[in-house]
Amino acid sequence: MKAEIITIGEELLDGSQVDLNAAYLGSRLTSLGAVVVRITSVPDAVDDIEAAAARGLEMADVVITTGGLGVTADDRTKQAVARLFGRKLVLDEDVLDCVRARFEARNLPMPEINIAAAMLPEGARPIENQRGTAPGLLFERGDALMFVLPGVPLELRSMFENFVSPFLEGRGLRALGQERLIRTTGLPESEIAERIEQLTRRLARTDVAYLPSVTGVDLKVTGRGETPAEAAKTAEKSQGKIAAKLEPYVYARGDESLEKVVGYLLSMKDSTLSVAESCTGGRLGWRMTRVPGSSDYFKGGVITYSDDLKKRLIGVKAASLKKHGAVSEETALEMALGVRKKCATDYGLAITGVAGPGGGTEDKPVGMVFIAVAGETSKRVRELRLVGGRGSIRRAAVQAALDLLRRLLLDIEEPG
Amino acid sequence: MKAEIITIGEELLDGSQVDLNAAYLGSRLTSLGAVVVRITSVPDAVDDIEAAAARGLEMADVVITTGGLGVTADDRTKQAVARLFGRKLVLDEDVLDCVRARFEARNLPMPEINIAAAMLPEGARPIENQRGTAPGLLFERGDALMFVLPGVPLELRSMFENFVSPFLEGRGLRALGQERLIRTTGLPESEIAERIEQLTRRLARTDVAYLPSVTGVDLKVTGRGETPAEAAKTAEKSQGKIAAKLEPYVYARGDESLEKVVGYLLSMKDSTLSVAESCTGGRLGWRMTRVPGSSDYFKGGVITYSDDLKKRLIGVKAASLKKHGAVSEETALEMALGVRKKCATDYGLAITGVAGPGGGTEDKPVGMVFIAVAGETSKRVRELRLVGGRGSIRRAAVQAALDLLRRLLLDIEEPG
Repeated sequence: MKAEIITIGEELLDGSQVDLNAAYLGSRLTSLGAVVVRITSVPDAVDDIEAAAARGLEMADVVITTGGLGVTADDRTKQAVARLFGRKLVLDEDVLDCVRARFEARNLPMPEINIAAAMLPEGARPIENQRGTAPGLLFERGDALMFVLPGVPLELRSMFENFVSPFLEGRGLRALGQERLIRTTGLPESEIAERIEQLTRRLARTDVAYLPSVTGVDLKVTGRGETPAEAAKTAEKSQGKIAAKLEPYVYARGDESLEKVVGYLLSMKDSTLSVAESCTGGRLGWRMTRVPGSSDYFKGGVITYSDDLKKRLIGVKAASLKKHGAVSEETALEMALGVRKKCATDYGLAITGVAGPGGGTEDKPVGMVFIAVAGETSKRVRELRLVGGRGSIRRAAVQAALDLLRRLLLDIEEPG
Repeated sequence: MKAEIITIGEELLDGSQVDLNAAYLGSRLTSLGAVVVRITSVPDAVDDIEAAAARGLEMADVVITTGGLGVTADDRTKQAVARLFGRKLVLDEDVLDCVRARFEARNLPMPEINIAAAMLPEGARPIENQRGTAPGLLFERGDALMFVLPGVPLELRSMFENFVSPFLEGRGLRALGQERLIRTTGLPESEIAERIEQLTRRLARTDVAYLPSVTGVDLKVTGRGETPAEAAKTAEKSQGKIAAKLEPYVYARGDESLEKVVGYLLSMKDSTLSVAESCTGGRLGWRMTRVPGSSDYFKGGVITYSDDLKKRLIGVKAASLKKHGAVSEETALEMALGVRKKCATDYGLAITGVAGPGGGTEDKPVGMVFIAVAGETSKRVRELRLVGGRGSIRRAAVQAALDLLRRLLLDIEEPG
């Protein structure tokens, strides 16, 4: 079953509002087994809405519009679809009673303008709005369906869950594609492609999408099948084969964050962690504490943005700073050892680098970052050369530091 | 000038990614004076992209596509537009040199797959990609323009600001509406509306949009006029009048962040800052250090997620923790005083609270947060009752702490 989503409103076109409704509908339709073939956003104008809806019906089995369904003057969806289907707007007494009842329940008089909510295209089926005034509409033409839904997210979601979703399931729609995630860090997208391209071409009934960001590349593996169970089996098998090609850069088979994986590994070893951050200014701590319950293994740490605090708070030696500089293997390691000792934790994790835009030199350019981890009997340190702006460099450095700890906890060697 | 935006990628259609690129382009094109007439999202398939691009050229003077421009197998935009314009893909040696240089700068061998980035449709003008590998493309056909841009937000934005925007301005497109921003924190949207509604109704040729978030409400003031200069004058006058009604909740008239404003105030007083964070785990430090050059006034601090580290690192008294608890006025104040002393800075800023979802009690529910600031001769402490999930509570707490410091530095009293 093919679906088109049409979102209506100037606020989407001029960028003053992000189109969250489209993402919601796309996700829900996909999980029901429909394939969303297009999303179109148009202004709240009768001609534009009618044209988009007509084009939607040419291509898709199900068209869902959202927006332009209120009772104010700039809501024109109902007129547009009435014209498209050649129907007149007539007063629906049942709907009017419902609208009146909503106002009465709140002891309010009903403003006249709300009568418009009960004017429906002849032959359209009203969809109850449990969260607002104007009902939604369902048109059927042959096998094609058009759902006309409101743009207020709460009303839209309530109507979709209570009416549209069960209606489509009643039509025999159910999930035929199943998705599984592989999360990687440390390998560029192009290298991942080289490693898995031959394999993915051979994998039957499987699609792979790359989702790159500054912290790594996620792979979305979609398996298809005649039944949801078969699709899930295909997805899981393909996920396993692809992930095997990308170890040890894979930190999660699923949607877990790296901080959650690291937290899990620390818990398993009954170990605790503290952090020392220079150029990242606290983001590593923020990441670790995004996980509820992280206080079991994460104790805290220090933000040693200045050299003075590197000495004062965690005992980095003045001589080391003088000889090697704040951005060096030696300082990173002293920070990790120092914070571990000062905070009395099992592991200490440290970051120091040049985030830019200023402060770079020929020897130590912007993007040069050292990360280090120290445990009771083990320590590691790595040099990174990161690219991008200040924000990207700092985000990528935190991710690499978390991965350094993950690899140590799993006893995986660092890449060469 | 009419514009159409085409965003490409299955991740948009199946809702696994919200279409932030469309919102960005919509907002930028609108502010340049173009009218965005449609946004279309299509899958990464040659036929779909070609059809959407062709339809875009029928309706709009400028078509911008984003996505599907990488070097992996699921990136097909280049093939689609080449076919639409009847052009062959040929190797562009200059572009290949640029791609090679990017890898060489990082001391990496260039994977063969990246040669694809330098295969360009004949006659298309490459647009330099300062943030990534694959260049963008510009096609001209008669008066119509088509910009083919990448989907990675950082690359897209860099290309739009450095190439597309100046190019369109060179074509005579210029802003007839001028925008000015007012940034507030600490006042709910409904209260802002009550304070300024009468005024904004009276203001000529001015629109005001509310942009609320967990850290405050921004107001976008748009002034209109016959010329850009006139529009700018209207926008600034209106901005001044509205901001006057909202003092002292206004922290910026422009797009400055609160951390930048606080940093400026610290610099003016030649003062330094350190932070002590419990429930926010490092975000306050991360925010302060987002500003390049912040090392002039921000020295660092401590993340005292555990009670033990509150004592160990900054000398919070065991007796205080026992008597009042970690989430209390007393502890917040001891943290601010302690970190100030330990880090030898002019000011210490501290946060302690219950971020949830667990850990709340009747006395100290989820969302209860104490923030405190200590200077040489002054100190302040405030209790917050924040709502929302863990992420919202932590973000809002950091913003409130920064504003506590701002008000102290400006000698503005705390609200009742």
